[in-house]
Amino acid sequence: MGEFDLIARYFTRPARPDGAVALGVGDDCALLAPAPGMQLAVSSDMLVEGRHFFAGTDPERLGHKALAVNLSDLAACGARPLAFTLALALPQVDAAWLEGFSRGLLQLADTHGCELVGGDTTQGPLNICITIFGEVPTGQALLRSGARPSDDIYVSGTLGDARLALEALQDQAAAAALPAETLAAARLRLEAPTPRVALGLALRGVASAALDVSDGLLGDLGHILRASGVGACVDTSITINLIAASALPESTGCHFDLNFLHQCTLAGGDDYELLFTAPAAARAAVAAASQASSTPVTRIGRIEAEPGVRLIDGQGQAVVHRYASFDHFA
Amino acid sequence: MGEFDLIARYFTRPARPDGAVALGVGDDCALLAPAPGMQLAVSSDMLVEGRHFFAGTDPERLGHKALAVNLSDLAACGARPLAFTLALALPQVDAAWLEGFSRGLLQLADTHGCELVGGDTTQGPLNICITIFGEVPTGQALLRSGARPSDDIYVSGTLGDARLALEALQDQAAAAALPAETLAAARLRLEAPTPRVALGLALRGVASAALDVSDGLLGDLGHILRASGVGACVDTSITINLIAASALPESTGCHFDLNFLHQCTLAGGDDYELLFTAPAAARAAVAAASQASSTPVTRIGRIEAEPGVRLIDGQGQAVVHRYASFDHFA
Repeated sequence: MGEFDLIARYFTRPARPDGAVALGVGDDCALLAPAPGMQLAVSSDMLVEGRHFFAGTDPERLGHKALAVNLSDLAACGARPLAFTLALALPQVDAAWLEGFSRGLLQLADTHGCELVGGDTTQGPLNICITIFGEVPTGQALLRSGARPSDDIYVSGTLGDARLALEALQDQAAAAALPAETLAAARLRLEAPTPRVALGLALRGVASAALDVSDGLLGDLGHILRASGVGACVDTSITINLIAASALPESTGCHFDLNFLHQCTLAGGDDYELLFTAPAAARAAVAAASQASSTPVTRIGRIEAEPGVRLIDGQGQAVVHRYASFDHFA
Repeated sequence: MGEFDLIARYFTRPARPDGAVALGVGDDCALLAPAPGMQLAVSSDMLVEGRHFFAGTDPERLGHKALAVNLSDLAACGARPLAFTLALALPQVDAAWLEGFSRGLLQLADTHGCELVGGDTTQGPLNICITIFGEVPTGQALLRSGARPSDDIYVSGTLGDARLALEALQDQAAAAALPAETLAAARLRLEAPTPRVALGLALRGVASAALDVSDGLLGDLGHILRASGVGACVDTSITINLIAASALPESTGCHFDLNFLHQCTLAGGDDYELLFTAPAAARAAVAAASQASSTPVTRIGRIEAEPGVRLIDGQGQAVVHRYASFDHFA
């Protein structure tokens, strides 16, 4: 199968009536027409085999995840998904793989009304690069730079499950100490994360700053703090809320002990939850946004004027830590 | 050097005053604000080492080319460049390579007022994925589907030089038959093509259809013909106008003989010239667009109602051919 046949077969669908996409797949460029008063939010993520996912990862989940991580960036800006381009390097044309990949990709795209409008296919080591486009009313995008002292800090959903699954896939002997259902649930978080698009939309005009947690809670919180010129105090007892916490083995001899779960939660990575701040006066509005989007959120701390992050336990005592976030070149 | 330092050092520059880019590098998304009445043209290309360029290619030329092939897509739509994202997989952090690459990339970006607004960096086999954004007045984009019977067919610049250089790099013994300056000039076309942005802009309202020649003249002409539901007659004697033609060796025993140059011209690939059609009544307007953009164009044939491509020689006699265009999975 040639390049053009491949695009036609797996990645071209009839254009759907949507005012924002004036021209889709098939010409030199796609044409987007944001509505008047709207800005276009743009983000790009590249997933490399062996780095972002294991060789042999289920292609349907991979297709889902490749788009999910980009949708998560739109969510973090409070942007409504419109369209995306897909650039794909494949070692060979594998029909079963392409069917699974395009199914997972396009199902999630349909869920969010996000149309595949163009891209590129080529031969090469497996690499998936998606660039996504959303729209947000001018001036209403959620940025990293808006956090102010005494703002509350919130995180959506749960953290650490993806990292737990990653570690379990790499150390199956230690992972045997955890129930199979727990591991399956954590693995689903790793391989098919749920982008918090509805929450991001509901937080427009409510959150003072936001981003999505992709490199670990503390590292990503640092981005908000630096961009906003502030510091933070985080209650670590609240953040231990991942799937596996309820199935924690008693034995501290297990690799997956309490300390390890702490690490997964605070510096795990690949969570794709929203981390955001809002003034204390907006607590009811945050609760309403959480309810409107059917997305649980947890208040985990407070922005402070003094730079840096201070961790406390449930009793308000300082917690010493050395959690590093994920860096692709560290 | 970590991922964030790398981005800051090589790929982040102070935001420049430009109404179309509301927010650049550094948040979850960039924000673009197309002017009222404008559509956003979007294109994405992925370049893979060993497939689109040789290992060891001069990084400055590679940075130039990675953006040039995307600018060429905007040119083919008649769109004015605004901004681009860069996703980059690197085997390792190599300061000399990154300096050269970013210099070539950003110099061409500056030439076209096209701002780097975001992207991604990761470790992996060398892969460069750029997504580019331009603006075009609503309804004025040059598409592939507008060619009509009796329209003239034009191509900008010269064709075949890039393919000649590619073949010469792969068969240096045969290439020795060509003058060194000819090869150097051809190699510059392969490694640092000039996107025809000014011509594309000048052809708005003049050309009936357009695309950029990336896979070879005849193959790409086929895209216009199918999208427009027409056929074409092309005079091959006119299209042999590449750099090397003037230095053609007498001996037909040379790999780089007349027949080979024919192939390079008609089916070479990597040319990044504009192939476009226009009504015969627009010949003066095409000449004016060529002059306004300082870009030579050559009339090479005519659109016909009957599907398919018919090649003729300088005497109007049919030429039998079997030229295939480049397919990344063929």
